[in-house]
Amino acid sequence: MKTRAAVAFEAKKPLEIVELDLEGPKEGEVLVEIMATGICHTDAYTLDGHDSEGIFPSVLGHEGAGIVREVGPGVTSVKPDDHVIPLYTPECRQCKSCLSGKTNLCTAIRATQGKGLMPDGTSRFSYKGETIYHYMGCSTFSNFTVLPEIAVAKIREDAPFQTSCYIGCGVTTGVGAVTNTAKVQVGDNVVVFGLGGIGLNVIQGARLAGANQIIGVDINPDREEWGRKFGMTDFLNTRGMSREDIVAKIVEMTDGGADYTFDATGNTEVMRTALEACHRGWGTSIIIGVAEAGKEIATRPFQLVTGRNWRGTAFGGAKGRTDVPKIVDMYMTGKIEIDPMITHVMGLEEINTAFDLMQEGKSIRSVVVF
Amino acid sequence: MKTRAAVAFEAKKPLEIVELDLEGPKEGEVLVEIMATGICHTDAYTLDGHDSEGIFPSVLGHEGAGIVREVGPGVTSVKPDDHVIPLYTPECRQCKSCLSGKTNLCTAIRATQGKGLMPDGTSRFSYKGETIYHYMGCSTFSNFTVLPEIAVAKIREDAPFQTSCYIGCGVTTGVGAVTNTAKVQVGDNVVVFGLGGIGLNVIQGARLAGANQIIGVDINPDREEWGRKFGMTDFLNTRGMSREDIVAKIVEMTDGGADYTFDATGNTEVMRTALEACHRGWGTSIIIGVAEAGKEIATRPFQLVTGRNWRGTAFGGAKGRTDVPKIVDMYMTGKIEIDPMITHVMGLEEINTAFDLMQEGKSIRSVVVF
Repeated sequence: MKTRAAVAFEAKKPLEIVELDLEGPKEGEVLVEIMATGICHTDAYTLDGHDSEGIFPSVLGHEGAGIVREVGPGVTSVKPDDHVIPLYTPECRQCKSCLSGKTNLCTAIRATQGKGLMPDGTSRFSYKGETIYHYMGCSTFSNFTVLPEIAVAKIREDAPFQTSCYIGCGVTTGVGAVTNTAKVQVGDNVVVFGLGGIGLNVIQGARLAGANQIIGVDINPDREEWGRKFGMTDFLNTRGMSREDIVAKIVEMTDGGADYTFDATGNTEVMRTALEACHRGWGTSIIIGVAEAGKEIATRPFQLVTGRNWRGTAFGGAKGRTDVPKIVDMYMTGKIEIDPMITHVMGLEEINTAFDLMQEGKSIRSVVVF
Repeated sequence: MKTRAAVAFEAKKPLEIVELDLEGPKEGEVLVEIMATGICHTDAYTLDGHDSEGIFPSVLGHEGAGIVREVGPGVTSVKPDDHVIPLYTPECRQCKSCLSGKTNLCTAIRATQGKGLMPDGTSRFSYKGETIYHYMGCSTFSNFTVLPEIAVAKIREDAPFQTSCYIGCGVTTGVGAVTNTAKVQVGDNVVVFGLGGIGLNVIQGARLAGANQIIGVDINPDREEWGRKFGMTDFLNTRGMSREDIVAKIVEMTDGGADYTFDATGNTEVMRTALEACHRGWGTSIIIGVAEAGKEIATRPFQLVTGRNWRGTAFGGAKGRTDVPKIVDMYMTGKIEIDPMITHVMGLEEINTAFDLMQEGKSIRSVVVF
């Protein structure tokens, strides 16, 4: 079949809207009509060539929502007309990681996914006879895409695609970092570094968990208003401040340091600040942001020996097929908000504008509707 | 009163055995006759001038056992003739840290302890009218010492001083890192870097916790025999191996990486190796060793984002007055061993020999008996 898609033919070039050939689903795979997709910093990170493992030409996009249109042989968990969210972190429920109950990092299809291929080692996309690669196992910048059955979460049918697509990455990453990874408890003090799309979702996750102080940190004063919309109680503009000064200020504001800090910036120096702003004895810092290739985090071991914990999270620690439908429920019952974060909605032909808006800090989330 | 003590008059010089003047216990303080004291790497670290906060002249030593001989006004929890272990990590049961239930790092007397003084801001030791400072709130290299009431753990009277003194630091630090900090569970795979006095206690802690594999790592092949005595199941001599090779080998030995790794070397490069040898998704690395001043740990944030946890522990996460008596019980009931680790016993006049033996790697633990 044919599908309209935005293709990244090479790094550092705008996406091109073309008609691709798409093979139908093979065994254990499903064909999904993408109804809406968000544009995330990770797409830009790959497109800009920062990801040393980025593969071109490919169909980017990993934050979508759509409808199952066809299933391959052996597929039992979804059927045509089911509404789904594609999962870049699948959930096979059979590998060592899934069975451990201790992580969401399913390894069932990791090797092929990292190569831009389906689990059988081939791609479903082609253009004029040439292979076009998949991306993060999703490729949601295409009106139709093929996904492994274990990489789709079935969701309720009354959830609007245009907003619930954001649950495919940003919402789950931010809210899940609080609820699944940190397990913030009522009364805890939380500090969020970076008030972009992820940071705002950390804030609303902390509000949902009943946090006491929710301190937002950014160098852009315009983000204060955004943070307060979702539950931020205090704002700290750290422009021009040294690490030592930021840590001292947060220690003062929280009477000793934060119970939990979250880095949603991807900046390794901010990651260090976030760790050191934790309370001595028990404070935990969680890295969410993806750092530039080759960058390292560092601190004095004394910071850990005196009781601070350094952790990370991917996809908010969420088990895709199990937890994503629950986050859709949280949205539909008003426990979390998404609508105000969708600042721009556009057609596929405008997708390069969405990248520009994001890079210029002018959007929280842009969504393409098909 | 007078007390015989080994005094560190200045850094990088041998200790001198002299008679000091010792003031009796003031309010909330106790006078303890030290019966035995271990010599630990931390004493050497300070004596060698590596600790930028080291204070001289002082009475070093922090791993002792003794008998209460006199109590000051207001002391209620111990009385003369009680057997006690001095605590460099006190337990006031009233500060924010103690009341949190989340850490053993009591802050009640931290400021004065760090300055080599008793909580009232003065020292009890003097020599020819000049102040001699306390060390780590203990100063066990003195036959008599004065301690805050909150810095002594009352222990059973049938425990021999010569071996149970080791519970004042090394045993509790190693065993507690496993049982209090990591909370290793039955069937977990554990890797211990550095098979000195701390590492061997990590090994026996892991055995006590029912660990599956207990892999010991050292560059000294003589330590294999020591490790096996206390429950080590596999030995890895990493002399000449790169970090990548060590990690790959451990990942292979443990089918994916360790559930828990422990650094008992104090070497920041080893700390990194220990983190990266953890299992993706859930492995936790715990820093026990005290690093050289100014040294930093580093890694790629990807290591944490993919589910590894970096933590530390001080005094094995043990609440001194609560947990130390329990560790003495474990020893007396045979659940953990100490006797084979006490490789040298000597009088105070030989204490400089104990430092030499330790630095040359010829002792596990030397103990001075008074």
